[in-house]
Amino acid sequence: MRLHPRTEAAKESIFPRMSGLAQRLGAVNLGQGFPSNPPPPFLLEAVRRALGRQDQYAPPAGLPALREALAEEFAVEPESVVVTSGATEALYVLLQSLVGPGDEVVVLEPFFDVYLPDAFLAGAKARLVRLDLTPEGFRLDLSALEKALTPRTRALLLNTPMNPTGLVFGERELEAIARLARAHDLFLISDEVYDELYYGERPRRLREFAPERTFTVGSAGKRLEATGYRVGWIVGPKEFMPRLAGMRQWTSFSAPTPLQAGVAEALKLARREGFYEALREGYRRRRDLLAGGLRAMGLRVYVPEGTYFLMAELPGWDAFRLVEEARVALIPASAFYLEDPPKDLFRFAFCKTEEELHLALERLGRVVNSPREAEGGAVSG
Amino acid sequence: MRLHPRTEAAKESIFPRMSGLAQRLGAVNLGQGFPSNPPPPFLLEAVRRALGRQDQYAPPAGLPALREALAEEFAVEPESVVVTSGATEALYVLLQSLVGPGDEVVVLEPFFDVYLPDAFLAGAKARLVRLDLTPEGFRLDLSALEKALTPRTRALLLNTPMNPTGLVFGERELEAIARLARAHDLFLISDEVYDELYYGERPRRLREFAPERTFTVGSAGKRLEATGYRVGWIVGPKEFMPRLAGMRQWTSFSAPTPLQAGVAEALKLARREGFYEALREGYRRRRDLLAGGLRAMGLRVYVPEGTYFLMAELPGWDAFRLVEEARVALIPASAFYLEDPPKDLFRFAFCKTEEELHLALERLGRVVNSPREAEGGAVSG
Repeated sequence: MRLHPRTEAAKESIFPRMSGLAQRLGAVNLGQGFPSNPPPPFLLEAVRRALGRQDQYAPPAGLPALREALAEEFAVEPESVVVTSGATEALYVLLQSLVGPGDEVVVLEPFFDVYLPDAFLAGAKARLVRLDLTPEGFRLDLSALEKALTPRTRALLLNTPMNPTGLVFGERELEAIARLARAHDLFLISDEVYDELYYGERPRRLREFAPERTFTVGSAGKRLEATGYRVGWIVGPKEFMPRLAGMRQWTSFSAPTPLQAGVAEALKLARREGFYEALREGYRRRRDLLAGGLRAMGLRVYVPEGTYFLMAELPGWDAFRLVEEARVALIPASAFYLEDPPKDLFRFAFCKTEEELHLALERLGRVVNSPREAEGGAVSG
Repeated sequence: MRLHPRTEAAKESIFPRMSGLAQRLGAVNLGQGFPSNPPPPFLLEAVRRALGRQDQYAPPAGLPALREALAEEFAVEPESVVVTSGATEALYVLLQSLVGPGDEVVVLEPFFDVYLPDAFLAGAKARLVRLDLTPEGFRLDLSALEKALTPRTRALLLNTPMNPTGLVFGERELEAIARLARAHDLFLISDEVYDELYYGERPRRLREFAPERTFTVGSAGKRLEATGYRVGWIVGPKEFMPRLAGMRQWTSFSAPTPLQAGVAEALKLARREGFYEALREGYRRRRDLLAGGLRAMGLRVYVPEGTYFLMAELPGWDAFRLVEEARVALIPASAFYLEDPPKDLFRFAFCKTEEELHLALERLGRVVNSPREAEGGAVSG
């Protein structure tokens, strides 16, 4: 009795692992991207109202009220929306539905950690296009993207605003990607779970440039600070959506009903009551606090245009030594690269309280100016 | 741009389709198996308490409190438990993890409708073993089961108490299955989502007979009348569970956190407060009401030993004509057979209110004694 070889995809992801370590060691957890704040009261109240009234199976494609709320947000018909058990399931179902053995899917590197196992479990090959990294920041080389396309390429997967780099792709890049996709007859998967978390102009959506071939992935957990509610969605060309709903009925049948009902109400209230503006304002403050504090220590910081992540360099450190010695949990760049990650680079999640950010800065301040002594210590010596 | 051929698995299942029809036509819905009763107040209260406190990602293997509650129920260690987004995901992840192209999995027929797409999506072949059906009821022929095994067989999938037949497999059958599995080095998947819904002696678990190779699938939705909460589980040999947790992190990452927290408390309260005894008592009454009413019409009824389903014959009817003309939604036996289903056989869900059951009987009574006239009508003529 042996498990099937595809379970080699089942390595424990570093995110829950680092959260476990942080908890055991009493570390400030700037690793896994879940907010320290609770969800907004209007979401909690809407879920409370649904309990005892909407407790049984929802249709696999989603509760009608939620599909309608999302249709209004995206200016599409409800039939263009399929609700999933979080964005994780949306991405899994899309890869299973779009690619298979012999197919290639282009993925930008650094990547969010589900993309590669999703491609592998679908039997497809992920072809990586690495972003340039200069002291000014990350940059997508469109000619490198074009060179990565082969006759086997069937889909291109983009993330904007992008985890972990904080990039927001602009009109020039999105238009070029749409043009390439049309020329090569590709599907586009656009992971836009951070669509409401940006610090400049409102990001454009990839689907504006190629609505006929783009599947947009979104997440109530990211927008409404409730990552444990498992309500995500796919918005895409109407003719493909019944098949996607049919596929997701076999993975988890339907997303949790009372949480879908709560999210349906909360999405409207969030828009009406200026919740996203306040959310962005709070995150901008925390981003600036963290970036300023790290810079004051003389560290190189890549300030994000979106998401609640920031990348910075901590020369001479590794994440496991850091969580033990500084009691600050971070995600090393290696989690987002297949091989040869940029040296000394870490992802900091700033979806935490200002107190936690201050404490993390204080703890880091104590160790980062003595890396040499630490390097000579028992752990690495 | 074409979807991958594996999306041929994505046919809309008859369950949500029949529920949709029932709603449109004002029919009594004895089709899809979701309870008319709300979940028990102690579950609703436990979920309400968790909201605002446990809202972010749970570990992929499940909230520690829920794994511990289940470990106590099953007399195993928490490391033997992985929580999933409903039993649907548990079954999907098990098939993906245990079988692949070239492998066979033995499935009893009639089957619950996810088993075949799950095998297909894993790339494996489902080999069906059909239960005998006599006027006395369904029966598993153990020698037919043995004959279905080939050198390619890697797993056997059982459902007890069994949907749709209502069979509860006894010690003799479970022991024989365990012996076969040992002799042929097979994994056993035991779908026991109806483990608390039985009307005779407490059913034995397959894992009692072969703990080293059995994965037991369970569901809070079935036990606690909350099919929309998407909290299921796998209990299995400890050494395989980290891989299963690793696989389920890619399908939906984790089950909904506040609902997991609520279920963890509710499982203990349900046991302590005699909830399952009361549940069974209520269902026994409704089973007898429905079976008695159908028999009084002269129909053949197969009275179940477990589950909240009953099978009965309605000579000359089909499910679509029935929902239109009688306004009673049922699931035809064809949903549970690959081909050549027993004639005139339907599944009735009795997890509905007594009023609904009375109304369904009244409506059926009006039409079943005039099938010939109905057959001559506009719909089939």
